[in-house]
This record gives sequence, structure tokens and C-alpha cells, in this order.
Amino acid sequence: MIEWFEDLTLGMHFKSPEKRLTRDDIKRFAAEFDPQPYHLDEAAAEQTPLKGLAASGWHTAAIAMRLFVEVRPFGPHPLLGIGVDELRWLAPVRPDDVLHLEGEVVKLVPSEKKPQGLVWIKWTAFNQRSEPVYTFTPIGVVPRRPA
Amino acid sequence: MIEWFEDLTLGMHFKSPEKRLTRDDIKRFAAEFDPQPYHLDEAAAEQTPLKGLAASGWHTAAIAMRLFVEVRPFGPHPLLGIGVDELRWLAPVRPDDVLHLEGEVVKLVPSEKKPQGLVWIKWTAFNQRSEPVYTFTPIGVVPRRPA
Repeated sequence: MIEWFEDLTLGMHFKSPEKRLTRDDIKRFAAEFDPQPYHLDEAAAEQTPLKGLAASGWHTAAIAMRLFVEVRPFGPHPLLGIGVDELRWLAPVRPDDVLHLEGEVVKLVPSEKKPQGLVWIKWTAFNQRSEPVYTFTPIGVVPRRPA
Repeated sequence: MIEWFEDLTLGMHFKSPEKRLTRDDIKRFAAEFDPQPYHLDEAAAEQTPLKGLAASGWHTAAIAMRLFVEVRPFGPHPLLGIGVDELRWLAPVRPDDVLHLEGEVVKLVPSEKKPQGLVWIKWTAFNQRSEPVYTFTPIGVVPRRPA
């Protein structure tokens, strides 16, 4: 089991469970955080470059965080992040799409001052047709194994 | 008024309205998207590096998107983004904090193939004590002025 920074290795892979999102989920999130025609109104969304109702990119990001939490890549330690590199939306996420995440450890940097390390995991979210729709590389803080 | 890609210039500044977030908002978002002790349980949060209840970083990101929408930096054109550079959480966001965004155009790249351009705006979210809590640089797509 992965428990401490020392247990993580470059190239280590993770795969999350799946999560379906509904038309109502998309509109509810958008009404609160991203009230734009792409995400709220089917007819207006048809006239945009997204050509139909699609989830807010920040909704996709939030669902990806939920899936990241469910993977528990750092074992019992809760996830603590300082930021994200290379966040990209690759394709629209539609009502009733089913997403899952796949991830790979791409960088590991032990702290010189604190008993912890930083880990970069490049995650990609795929839909039910195995199309990549979103990618992000969060920078996590993981404790080192006590001496 | 800013309406087209040509109206944007390097160094242009924006400032958003304010948004307060409550303890209930923090727990509701976290229960759905980021169910971890920092964001759900006051007593457990005290024992973590965040030393008390704090909003999910993705909740802060979603609120920042809402404030970005309210600024309407691209005039009548809805916001369409391909991704985000340099997303960093700088300090915990606590119950009843009041956030606002300040932004600056840092990069402009006209498309060679489509009648549009890409714009990078570096946004920083500040709390009611003027402390920076979050920064992100979304990459937006803005139409060019029709010939």
C-alpha cells in the first residue's frame, strides 16, 4: 500500500471509479458558478462553438477532484495540493457522459526543509467512448515516512 | 467597450465584484466534490496543516470563475477557455471570507487559421484583508473583429 512519499515512484499508474453526470447536474453547477449559454440553455448552446449543452470546465474539474479523492493515491493521508500545472479541457462533456480518471506519477521532489515531498500526477479524464476530455497535473504534498 | 480580440491590450486591468462564502457553502461543495476533513469537519480540520475549516481549492476556483463571468472582460462574447496555466492556492479560504478578483492581460496570440485569438489573463483572488489566496491564468478564445 502507498502510505508515504517514499512509496511513490515515477511512472506509477492509477485508475479511478466512474462518475456519470446528468443534465440537471450540469445546469445546477453552471447556475451557481458559470452561468453561460453553453451550460444552461440547450437552444442557445447549439449556436455556440460547443454545438450543444456541455458541462462547465470547472464542473469537470470538480468531478475529477472527486474521482482523485476516491483513488486515494496517498493511502490514509488526505490530499493536500499547492496548485495545478497543465490544466486543459480537450473535448466537451455532455449530459449523461460517464467519466473516469487515469493518472501517472510524473515528478517527485523531496522537500529539503520539511518531512514531506511534492508529487506531480498527470491525470486524464476519459468519457465512455474512451475519448480524453480533460487533463490536469496537480501538485500534491505527501508526508515522508517517519525515521 | 471591449468587444473583440483587437480591443484587448497587454497590461489591461480588470477588477471583479465581491463574493462571500459561508460555512454551509464550504461543506456543501466539499460533500459533493472534495470530501476531506479540511473541508467538512471543524474538529478534524484543526488537526491538519490548514489548522481549521477551509474551502476546497476547487470551490475557490469555481467562485473565481463566477467572478470572472461577472467581469465580462470580453464584452458580449461568452467566455470560452481551452485551459489554465499556473493555478496556485496561496492561502486557506475560511468561512465568511469575502473574495474578489483582480486581473491583467499577460499574453495575446492571434490565431493564424481562425478569426479569433487567444488571451491569457493572470487573475489573483484576494480576501477581505487584501491577502492573495488563489491565482490562475486561464487561456481564453476571443473572436476577431469582422473585416
